[in-house]
Amino acid sequence: MAATASILADLFILFLAAKVAGAAFARLGQPAVIGELLAGVLIGPHALGLAGTADPALVALFHGDAATAQEATNLVLELLAELGVIVLLFFVGLETRLSDLLGVGRRAVLVGVLGVLAPFAAGYGLMTLRGEAPATALFVAAALVATSTGITARVLRDLGVLHAAESRIILGAAVIDDILAMIILATVSQLGPRGTVDPLDIGLIAAQAVGFTLFVALLGVRAISRFQTHLERLPLANAPLVLALALMLGLATLATRVGLAAIIGAFLAGLVLAQAKERYALEDAALPIYEFLVPFFFVIMGTRVDPALFLDARIIGDALLITVVAVLAKLLGAGAGGLGLGLRSAALIGTGMVPRGEVGLIVASLGLSRGLIAAEFFSVVVVMSILTTLIVPPALTWLSRPRVRRPAPARGERMGGAGRLPEL
Amino acid sequence: MAATASILADLFILFLAAKVAGAAFARLGQPAVIGELLAGVLIGPHALGLAGTADPALVALFHGDAATAQEATNLVLELLAELGVIVLLFFVGLETRLSDLLGVGRRAVLVGVLGVLAPFAAGYGLMTLRGEAPATALFVAAALVATSTGITARVLRDLGVLHAAESRIILGAAVIDDILAMIILATVSQLGPRGTVDPLDIGLIAAQAVGFTLFVALLGVRAISRFQTHLERLPLANAPLVLALALMLGLATLATRVGLAAIIGAFLAGLVLAQAKERYALEDAALPIYEFLVPFFFVIMGTRVDPALFLDARIIGDALLITVVAVLAKLLGAGAGGLGLGLRSAALIGTGMVPRGEVGLIVASLGLSRGLIAAEFFSVVVVMSILTTLIVPPALTWLSRPRVRRPAPARGERMGGAGRLPEL
Repeated sequence: MAATASILADLFILFLAAKVAGAAFARLGQPAVIGELLAGVLIGPHALGLAGTADPALVALFHGDAATAQEATNLVLELLAELGVIVLLFFVGLETRLSDLLGVGRRAVLVGVLGVLAPFAAGYGLMTLRGEAPATALFVAAALVATSTGITARVLRDLGVLHAAESRIILGAAVIDDILAMIILATVSQLGPRGTVDPLDIGLIAAQAVGFTLFVALLGVRAISRFQTHLERLPLANAPLVLALALMLGLATLATRVGLAAIIGAFLAGLVLAQAKERYALEDAALPIYEFLVPFFFVIMGTRVDPALFLDARIIGDALLITVVAVLAKLLGAGAGGLGLGLRSAALIGTGMVPRGEVGLIVASLGLSRGLIAAEFFSVVVVMSILTTLIVPPALTWLSRPRVRRPAPARGERMGGAGRLPEL
Repeated sequence: MAATASILADLFILFLAAKVAGAAFARLGQPAVIGELLAGVLIGPHALGLAGTADPALVALFHGDAATAQEATNLVLELLAELGVIVLLFFVGLETRLSDLLGVGRRAVLVGVLGVLAPFAAGYGLMTLRGEAPATALFVAAALVATSTGITARVLRDLGVLHAAESRIILGAAVIDDILAMIILATVSQLGPRGTVDPLDIGLIAAQAVGFTLFVALLGVRAISRFQTHLERLPLANAPLVLALALMLGLATLATRVGLAAIIGAFLAGLVLAQAKERYALEDAALPIYEFLVPFFFVIMGTRVDPALFLDARIIGDALLITVVAVLAKLLGAGAGGLGLGLRSAALIGTGMVPRGEVGLIVASLGLSRGLIAAEFFSVVVVMSILTTLIVPPALTWLSRPRVRRPAPARGERMGGAGRLPEL
């Protein structure tokens, strides 16, 4: 009880800080998500230490073992952050129409594939030029690959442009990107020091990932279209919302079982349920859960940042180099896939794919624990993840800002026509 | 990532099982909460083992230490259950009008005090008669004291009778009960083997507890009445809901700091916000969070039950004796406080105060860890907590069932007049 009370206090501080900072940034005309991230940095264990540190009651629970108590605290916060990002991607899925996604399908595949290949090649090339071993070069390259859709999706949502063609391409490409990134992660995670893997395993993982996505998206949409009228007959209070939440948790879990990120399952759950959303007002129904849980993801991500890292000259030099490579490679690779839509749209798509966030951190921590990358490279990847995450919200806001001020169009008008971002 | 994925799978199974069992029980005309509890027993680590057991990925996170991984799993689930019961009591507070509670104030105090004294005296007497040491007798007596408002509040809510006079007396008495129980818990937790405590500490804890409740309830209501019109001017999406959630987490945290249970703070937050609920439709706004989180409390409580305990003849004999004492003492003690309202109302109030739930478990586990009670007594208290929890929902349902079937009165009518349960 004392242990949960101590974590409860953390949750209160995290929630309050996220909301206050988010409101402050919104007032300044910036996306609330930046405020939530920076609030996390400020109150996290590396700065003020107001949240995220195991307190004495928790250490007592783990028989005085402070390190284990801290690991348990991290686990709790990680799970809460995971629930937050699951709800976020569920929401993004709910706000995505499959027909829209299929309409941008070929371009999304192009953006996704080029956006993965370019950073991987650039990272591997840079590390090889610096004389690193192949296994190390592969790990660093892998850490540069995966786009963190959470940040981009949140900013696009805050800007109210989720239905624009560029946004749909970014979200579609993010699905492709995640599948490719998970294949690469699964591959490098099987790397021995000599850098060998079993091609059969890779093929199996890839087939599972692609099969899961197609199966859920296509079959789920059909099932929902057919059975949605039966939902209201269930002897369950708020049956549609409850079933939606169960599907969200279930597909997120299933995704992890086929080697994908949980958020991909949550996104697919939202996508499938988007077919029934008008009937049951699912977005309105789930919004309070969004307001409660999503900020935890961003503020908790913030708490993991050690501001002192930014002061170490050697790390910051390497980090800036890697960050520039990571940004340019993703911007040019993913952007190249969007060139057919014009330069501004291509820049927007490329920028939207830039944030690396948590996936890069996962790859780097895996490489560190395997002894395949040095601690300094880990710090470099951490800084890269943070910088790519922090620069994108203002860049996206700027790129999607109307060029000349005119009265805003009605929502229907904005979503109609070519479906691009309004060139006001 | 693998570790959070394993817990995510548990959450999915817990949520699904709770909702399916809840719906099944609702269909049978029973409170959904019994289904949720029994679903937890069924899928918990002591039976099917589908949820609540640390999996290999989690054990790996804790460096192969299975016991620690299990403790961490328990911590995560306990926190989730705590969030669930916090949201539940917040909701109950939101549905309680302070004027109603103050209207039943004197009777609630009488019910609360008698409902604490009777089981404490009965438990202490029984243990002393059996030749136990004073410290042991005090601990067992303390474990019999605290009513678990969660179960009763949920059943009253499911039955739609939260506004009846009996319900308001139960909820008011539960606040008194919790304050007294926390004072007793704080007292016995300072017991040495010889059973001595510092009266000054007890006085301090008691003063804090009473002061906190009165301060928050009275000042909070005034502050909300005065400032509620300013809420909508905040630059924050869904400001009223967000502030309500922040107040819920904040007062829950604050309650733990003054030695009270977190749920008392959450109840007070709801009570205070009830002043502004019509204006902002806070109940509707928070309902999805209720649907998502509250079932976790009951299903997770269920997972803690080892059905095998019910098969050990010696334990079950002792447990039945203690349970009968616990039930009768609370029923007669709390019921005596409600006698002025007639026998049926007194029985209803007494029954509503019977469930012991988690607080008894906390006291017992504390006594166990201090070596003041034996492992067998711990099991006895566990069985007592479960039985008192399981028998109350059907008993309350039966007691508040209309005697003769007539058309149900309109809501306003039911709440008007004497405000008692309808004697249809």
